[in-house]
Amino acid sequence: MAAITLDPIGRVHSPRIEAKDDFWGDVISVIELDSTRFTPESVLGLTDFSHILVVFHLDRVPDDSVVSSASHPRNNPDWPRVGIFAQRKKHRPNRLGVSICELLQVDGLKLKVKALDAIEGTPVLDIKPYVREFEPDPAQVRQPQWMTELMRDYFS
Amino acid sequence: MAAITLDPIGRVHSPRIEAKDDFWGDVISVIELDSTRFTPESVLGLTDFSHILVVFHLDRVPDDSVVSSASHPRNNPDWPRVGIFAQRKKHRPNRLGVSICELLQVDGLKLKVKALDAIEGTPVLDIKPYVREFEPDPAQVRQPQWMTELMRDYFS
Repeated sequence: MAAITLDPIGRVHSPRIEAKDDFWGDVISVIELDSTRFTPESVLGLTDFSHILVVFHLDRVPDDSVVSSASHPRNNPDWPRVGIFAQRKKHRPNRLGVSICELLQVDGLKLKVKALDAIEGTPVLDIKPYVREFEPDPAQVRQPQWMTELMRDYFS
Repeated sequence: MAAITLDPIGRVHSPRIEAKDDFWGDVISVIELDSTRFTPESVLGLTDFSHILVVFHLDRVPDDSVVSSASHPRNNPDWPRVGIFAQRKKHRPNRLGVSICELLQVDGLKLKVKALDAIEGTPVLDIKPYVREFEPDPAQVRQPQWMTELMRDYFS
């Protein structure tokens, strides 16, 4: 299959300069869109949404640390071995991150957001409004216990 | 900012061969992972999740139809002009799609899913398990009325 080339639309400015596993809940960041390609028209109406979905490139993850197989999440032997596509681990093929965060403010091409789990300088590939109808019925959602345990402090 | 090159991890096989705006709810598709790079270990444990998040490339959207500014969604003058990043429109920079779908079955490298809004042949860039804790509190989510109206038949 042919490779796909993407151009970042902007960058994350975050107080976090190193990746950490947990405690993203109170992190306030700014996504700054590329002013050579976009204008405030590109985000017109975005503040009518409380949350946005951000696609970003985990560019600080070294190529040679990417895995395609199974492992214990966070190397915790108490949790089962699971495949890379059954985890949210960042050492993944294509190193894409997808996160939902609260949109606090839009100032020109700067989007102030809360709880975005991306570090300083991270290239952003897309921003979409968070839309209720794209989400499953919470009553139908099922996930394994290990994931619930792993997420305990993620957004603390 | 430097361009980013991604390699598709697989492809969508869908009964839909053309993009349509609505009625994705009953579409059953198969995501087939690239067997030259992955093994069933890559999706080990995935069936413990009811839903998956799929990142894909909207490769049939012509480059010259991509917009970076504002427009009326679906050209409907009754809805406000909104920026490309305040819409889910597919003619967007980097042409990335992100969707949640129900995981019905995993058979080797074939993932059978329900309600994936991607057409036959679409390159897949990542698969992540859908995890409750990554979602906002539904009581805190706000979206404009035009989007609720637009989504009315999307997953019918």
